[in-house]
Amino acid sequence: MQPTSASARNDGVEHYLRAVVAYDGTDFRGFQIQNQGLRARTHSDALRTVQGVLEEALERITRERVRLVGAGRTDAGVHALGQVVAFTTHWRHSWSDLHRAWNAVLSDDVAVLSLCRAQREFHPRFDAASRVYRYTIWNHPVRNPLLRRTVLWEPRQLDVSSMAVALELLIGEHDFATFGTSPGGRQGSTVRRILAANAYRCQSARCAQCAVYIDIEANAFLYRMVRSIVGTVLEVGRGALSVVQFASAFAAKDRSQAGPTAPPHGLCLMDVNY
Amino acid sequence: MQPTSASARNDGVEHYLRAVVAYDGTDFRGFQIQNQGLRARTHSDALRTVQGVLEEALERITRERVRLVGAGRTDAGVHALGQVVAFTTHWRHSWSDLHRAWNAVLSDDVAVLSLCRAQREFHPRFDAASRVYRYTIWNHPVRNPLLRRTVLWEPRQLDVSSMAVALELLIGEHDFATFGTSPGGRQGSTVRRILAANAYRCQSARCAQCAVYIDIEANAFLYRMVRSIVGTVLEVGRGALSVVQFASAFAAKDRSQAGPTAPPHGLCLMDVNY
Repeated sequence: MQPTSASARNDGVEHYLRAVVAYDGTDFRGFQIQNQGLRARTHSDALRTVQGVLEEALERITRERVRLVGAGRTDAGVHALGQVVAFTTHWRHSWSDLHRAWNAVLSDDVAVLSLCRAQREFHPRFDAASRVYRYTIWNHPVRNPLLRRTVLWEPRQLDVSSMAVALELLIGEHDFATFGTSPGGRQGSTVRRILAANAYRCQSARCAQCAVYIDIEANAFLYRMVRSIVGTVLEVGRGALSVVQFASAFAAKDRSQAGPTAPPHGLCLMDVNY
Repeated sequence: MQPTSASARNDGVEHYLRAVVAYDGTDFRGFQIQNQGLRARTHSDALRTVQGVLEEALERITRERVRLVGAGRTDAGVHALGQVVAFTTHWRHSWSDLHRAWNAVLSDDVAVLSLCRAQREFHPRFDAASRVYRYTIWNHPVRNPLLRRTVLWEPRQLDVSSMAVALELLIGEHDFATFGTSPGGRQGSTVRRILAANAYRCQSARCAQCAVYIDIEANAFLYRMVRSIVGTVLEVGRGALSVVQFASAFAAKDRSQAGPTAPPHGLCLMDVNY
């Protein structure tokens, strides 16, 4: 790797960088390193995490110990197109060199979309104003082999309008205890603010409206919150739950009132806004 | 499997059926059984083919020997959303029962989209009026981990308009010897009729025009023809070949004038028209 002379950095001082990362979550045990003492490093490792793979690649390039902080701890199997991470490095060359080298070393199920300098006080998780998640459903009597890793297959015709009405009830600041638990444990608040929530059929001619998207944007999410909302709203779409029953379950602030948690592979972290 | 009484068939006679099949070609050695004497049957088998997997599943259900005929022999790694197959069976119950059972037995990288009775004289390959293939390119400086199994990554900005102009030269009945060899061997004709050929950027907001589609419809294709055309037209998109040079290569009817053959994983058999 040759640094370009125009942008070479020879100061050797500490830099704080921010990157946007995309990954196929299928072969990861989630974003966050499971056991800080035991970093999973290889593809076959049962503890392989996105954070571990990103850090390992950076360490191979920079030859220094790197610790990443991510905006959202996506679960095992959940994908991302807009995960945000930050880290400190003493890298002496250009950011574009580091960006290129990082992508060259990473396995093909992760990619660094962009890399830039961050403000010293920037924190990917605490500074996030909102996160946007998308859940995708293949709503057709027959499964789609080409999309199977990133969509949930639902053979029964969904009533997407009712799903959209149910989701609209969630918009605003509410106690979402029905749909998840606080990362802070029992003492932690289960109040969150949902900024947007919608369900709609993709209008592309090719998928013939068989793809159904559920988009949810919130200031922050509880553990399993998106997947629990999706699983419950799918019950509305199937006609197993009325919108009124959905509203009662939400108002109950009782985890046992939620529908089954939707599987992770349909979920994708689309954006983190600051 | 219980036959529905309304549509139960107890005649025990031979039926001729036609199905539309979709598959993720990644883990297949192509559509067609490689060695008729040695049928590859398991997922781990190096000779696993779509035909073999479809036949094996049908045989498990119908308990009779089945031989499928397909419309197009897609290469190893090539996908399909509209492959057409036909076969004979003595199945005594409804087609919808057979359809459901077939999909239930098949691995999740193949799916039978539809199944219906065929005319006795129907032949999936010889009766096809045209085949439609799509090649998809991810044209962005960074690869897309979520699409990596079904798109070719091209980091350099492509001149898609020039690609479209080059492709337009191919429309009509021509000798395509530059772009492939005849399935009939050296004696076989290399004349084919291209009905439509275009290159364009996907207009979806989400992919920000990074997806480039190359759609080609022809009455029939030579071996490797789509991938050879795509590989050559990509040279035009990269500026390595002018449209005039592309036209000369085409007119030369000389296989050595073609660009490199594009890899199979970006290619998908979309439709077969009769």
